Amino acid sequence: MDLKTEIRQMAKKAKEAGPALTRLKTTQKNRVLEQTADSLLKQTRLIIRENQKDLKSARKAGQGAAFLDRLSLKESTLKEMAQGLREVAQLPDPVGEVTGMWTRPNGLQVGRMRIPLGVIGFIYESRPNVTVDAAGLCLKAGNAVILKGGSEAFYSNLVLTRLMQECLVREGLPRAAIQMIPTTDREAIVELLKLEEFVDLVIPRGGEELIRMVTAQARMPVLKHYKGVCHIFVDEGADISRAQVICLNAKVQRPGVCNAMETLLVHQSIAKPFLPAMVRLFRKEKVEIRGCPQTLKIIGTGKGIRPAAEEDWSAEYLDLILSVRVVAGIKEAMAHIHKYGSRHTEAILTRDYDRAREFLNSVDSSVVLVNASTRFNDGHQLGLGAEIGISTTKLHAFGPMGLTELTTTKFIVFGQGQIRS
Amino acid sequence: MDLKTEIRQMAKKAKEAGPALTRLKTTQKNRVLEQTADSLLKQTRLIIRENQKDLKSARKAGQGAAFLDRLSLKESTLKEMAQGLREVAQLPDPVGEVTGMWTRPNGLQVGRMRIPLGVIGFIYESRPNVTVDAAGLCLKAGNAVILKGGSEAFYSNLVLTRLMQECLVREGLPRAAIQMIPTTDREAIVELLKLEEFVDLVIPRGGEELIRMVTAQARMPVLKHYKGVCHIFVDEGADISRAQVICLNAKVQRPGVCNAMETLLVHQSIAKPFLPAMVRLFRKEKVEIRGCPQTLKIIGTGKGIRPAAEEDWSAEYLDLILSVRVVAGIKEAMAHIHKYGSRHTEAILTRDYDRAREFLNSVDSSVVLVNASTRFNDGHQLGLGAEIGISTTKLHAFGPMGLTELTTTKFIVFGQGQIRS
Repeated sequence: MDLKTEIRQMAKKAKEAGPALTRLKTTQKNRVLEQTADSLLKQTRLIIRENQKDLKSARKAGQGAAFLDRLSLKESTLKEMAQGLREVAQLPDPVGEVTGMWTRPNGLQVGRMRIPLGVIGFIYESRPNVTVDAAGLCLKAGNAVILKGGSEAFYSNLVLTRLMQECLVREGLPRAAIQMIPTTDREAIVELLKLEEFVDLVIPRGGEELIRMVTAQARMPVLKHYKGVCHIFVDEGADISRAQVICLNAKVQRPGVCNAMETLLVHQSIAKPFLPAMVRLFRKEKVEIRGCPQTLKIIGTGKGIRPAAEEDWSAEYLDLILSVRVVAGIKEAMAHIHKYGSRHTEAILTRDYDRAREFLNSVDSSVVLVNASTRFNDGHQLGLGAEIGISTTKLHAFGPMGLTELTTTKFIVFGQGQIRS
Repeated sequence: MDLKTEIRQMAKKAKEAGPALTRLKTTQKNRVLEQTADSLLKQTRLIIRENQKDLKSARKAGQGAAFLDRLSLKESTLKEMAQGLREVAQLPDPVGEVTGMWTRPNGLQVGRMRIPLGVIGFIYESRPNVTVDAAGLCLKAGNAVILKGGSEAFYSNLVLTRLMQECLVREGLPRAAIQMIPTTDREAIVELLKLEEFVDLVIPRGGEELIRMVTAQARMPVLKHYKGVCHIFVDEGADISRAQVICLNAKVQRPGVCNAMETLLVHQSIAKPFLPAMVRLFRKEKVEIRGCPQTLKIIGTGKGIRPAAEEDWSAEYLDLILSVRVVAGIKEAMAHIHKYGSRHTEAILTRDYDRAREFLNSVDSSVVLVNASTRFNDGHQLGLGAEIGISTTKLHAFGPMGLTELTTTKFIVFGQGQIRS
């Protein structure tokens, strides 16, 4: 069978599994999740052996320590994955929820009922634990998922998918609920993206290049974010020691992720008392500073401090680098965010009631915070229970996507003979 | 200025109007809506004069009476349009609504706030009153809209847009909130669909060809429905006289619209008592019947009754034609809908509690009804207040799209110094 036919058959099977998946009882879905968790622990040695194949190829290819670390499945990683599945099992089932119901003047009772989206294509790079996280969420929301991971984790993803399928079948669920495209050929993605008749949604997760490719080729809707250029604005009169703690956390706690701060905006009236000590803290953590002229005037130049170029303002460093700009006030801060931001996450640190409200109401980003770290843009942290990704397109989902975002609603109508006149 | 530059500038202006539109007070938006309503009544003669230009071209082009009727703006049409705007003014403002708020264990207060989508491209054919309806809804939801109507209504749309813009400017709102592409050149649509940096959503409304063209070319999300192949399933033991009234209404009350019934499915055990009288009623209304073999066995053949071909089951007639099939029961009815349906609107007519529930829960269409006409799939009828279209894609909106569907939600977070550990 050629690749094109194979992908098409997978997608068709996924679609055909739809009605059965929609009708699943919550207990059935939870049992599969729990059993998969058990299976990850029981089959630890098998999984680690398959993971070693990927690690060996990666070492051969000369990948660095950070890459190998992300790729590696340790016993502790598998325990966390199992725990993650048990948490998803404990989340309320979104399917079947009636989110509202009202009665029309003619007596029709109209409601909205939450239903699965159908078939989700999940195209990702990076760590193999994502395979299990994503499949678990898709299943709980009643969707079939077609997984296409990165070639670097091929054998790890394959064994994880096989274990999940075994649990599906043991519970009498269709194996097609969780499928993986069993090739490292990128052509497979192109084929999948053509199948709008079978695939309801594609979620790409990985580098910007992958995401742009998926967006350009997909004939079905895509939920994605290109990048996170996140800002913190330190307002006039902000609590300086609190601001230091938050800014440090937003930049250095995990600099390689999309919700880390990339640009710090500082009100001119607080710049002098705030910036020098703040920059010392950043420098202690080896953060390189790229400042606007006013910033450099206050903190001076020196090792790890240099002028920002125009392209710095729209850069997603994903690294220990921070651009810093002094602004005249909240209006200039918001204009900067509007111009250079990526609609991902922005925070204001302030003690002023009106400006807190203005920032919250006006900034057009998926998560807007007052007096907290940008690092909270995350499904777990915001209380969605788990997340399959973050969307910075506004349609359907804006921000972290949890179980609810993997569903839609249909209208249900109870009548007793009503007709239109 | 060439067409490409002109479209780009329109889209850019629309985007730039975003922050101002997001911050509008409800009263400001409502004043514009009310003034536009007044203006339609005050300028009736001017509008009708411009409409005459379109009617003249249409007559020259040899268009039939139905086409001319849809195109024509009478005093009564303008009164209805004005009334529609006043109704939108009276709807609650969706922008700024906090749809939920919860507190995390670390004290963060997290909520979702409803915000405008941004810039909407609305590409439509047909009646010029849609111009005002759509622009009114977009404005109330805080969006900028770029209108591209059909060439047949060019002068009518132009004068209506100009009147709306005058009202915008009079109230101090940006003129770019409502713009119309002032050309009949279809190339303009192609240009607009490239501008994903400025346009957040495109809604096409019209024939299937237009919608397919928009979907294929658009780089931004598209909300649409291709067609409505709507089914009614008359269950075993249904109330026959009530079923007759509903089926007749669903087929003949307005056969040219997407929520009219196209296929009637009848349980085999009720076919004999139900079908002959039902078909007589249909024939009285000049409905042509295309029946499955079992149907023809019961009702015989004759004038206006002929066998259905395979392609009849997926046909959207939009006319006084109905395909009829006798099925073994609810399972076969639902399988037929799954195979041939368009996920638009389906109804079951039944007295059975379990089957009513099964149909409601399992059928994967945007509106699923029990004992009511399919004609109720409509924003007004379902209580959304007004609609800009119907979506049969599941992402973001599934079913009629009202004001809420023209918005999205962002997360807002109130902290007091929280960081991630």
